[in-house]
Amino acid sequence: MNAIFIYIVAVAVMFTCCKEAPKNNLSVDAKAIFPKGQLGATENFTGNAWNYGLVANDTAFTTLVGNVYFEPGARTNWHIHPAGQILVITDGVGYHQIRGQPVESIRKGSVVKCPPGVEHWHGASADTGLHQLYIVPNTEKGIVVWNEKVTDEQYKGH
Amino acid sequence: MNAIFIYIVAVAVMFTCCKEAPKNNLSVDAKAIFPKGQLGATENFTGNAWNYGLVANDTAFTTLVGNVYFEPGARTNWHIHPAGQILVITDGVGYHQIRGQPVESIRKGSVVKCPPGVEHWHGASADTGLHQLYIVPNTEKGIVVWNEKVTDEQYKGH
Repeated sequence: MNAIFIYIVAVAVMFTCCKEAPKNNLSVDAKAIFPKGQLGATENFTGNAWNYGLVANDTAFTTLVGNVYFEPGARTNWHIHPAGQILVITDGVGYHQIRGQPVESIRKGSVVKCPPGVEHWHGASADTGLHQLYIVPNTEKGIVVWNEKVTDEQYKGH
Repeated sequence: MNAIFIYIVAVAVMFTCCKEAPKNNLSVDAKAIFPKGQLGATENFTGNAWNYGLVANDTAFTTLVGNVYFEPGARTNWHIHPAGQILVITDGVGYHQIRGQPVESIRKGSVVKCPPGVEHWHGASADTGLHQLYIVPNTEKGIVVWNEKVTDEQYKGH
C-alpha cells in the first residue's frame, strides 16, 4: 500500500512539474515565424530591432518584404517611405504613429497602411515585443528616408 | 489513509487530464493570426480555402494583401498573376508548384516568389492545413487569371 501511495504521489508531482510554463517575453521568440536576423543600426532605431529580409528589391516585383522583431521598448526613428508601407503584425503588442495623429496600439492581426510620403514611426510596447512583416511597394519610387529619433516623451505619449 | 489515497489519485487524474492536448488540425485554427474569412469559390479551389482580405486594391499602394487558410487537401486551381505573387507561409505545411517544375514543399517561414505571368498552384498538405499571406504587387497590370483544376494526380505528384 505504501508503495502504491509513493507511486501516486510521484505521478502527481510529475504532472505538476510538466504543466505548460507561464507565458513570458521569452516565449515570444520560441514561437516566432522567422529567425531574428540582423540588429538594426543604432542611428535608425532606439533599442534592439532585428531585421530578417524575405524578398529583396528587384525589378520584377519592385516590392521589399521582411520581418522585424522589436524587443520591448524598441522603435524606429521617424521616417518616410516615398511609396508608402504596409505592416502586418503577426505577434506581440506595439505602437504606430503618423506625424500629427495620435499613437495607435497595434497587436497580432493588426494591419497598418502608411500612405506614400507620410512620416511615421512604429515599435514594440514597453512590456511586450512586436513581430511585424513589412511590405514596401513600388520601390522604384524609393524605399525609406530616415529622420530623427522618437523621444521618450513621444513614445510615452500614448 | 484511504481518504488521502483517493485524494492523491484524484490529483493525479486531474493533472493527466489538464496536460496540453496533442497538436491536431483544430489547434492550427486556435493559434491563427487572422479570422478565417470567406470560403473560396468552388470553381477556383479544390476543398475548403478561406480568404481574409487585409489590404484592398487601390491606386496608392497598387498592392493586394490577404490571408488564405487552406484546410488539409485544399488547393487553388492553376492560375497566373500578371504582375507575379509573393507568398509568406505563417503556419502549417503545404505545396507550391510552377508549371513544368517539381512540386516544392512549403511550411511555416517559407517565402515563395512566383514571377509575373507564370502559371502556378498552391495549397495545403493532405494531413495539415496551410496559413499563407499573399502579396500581389503592381495590380495595375492585373491581379489573377484562373485556369483549370489541379487534378489529384498532379496534387499527389510530389
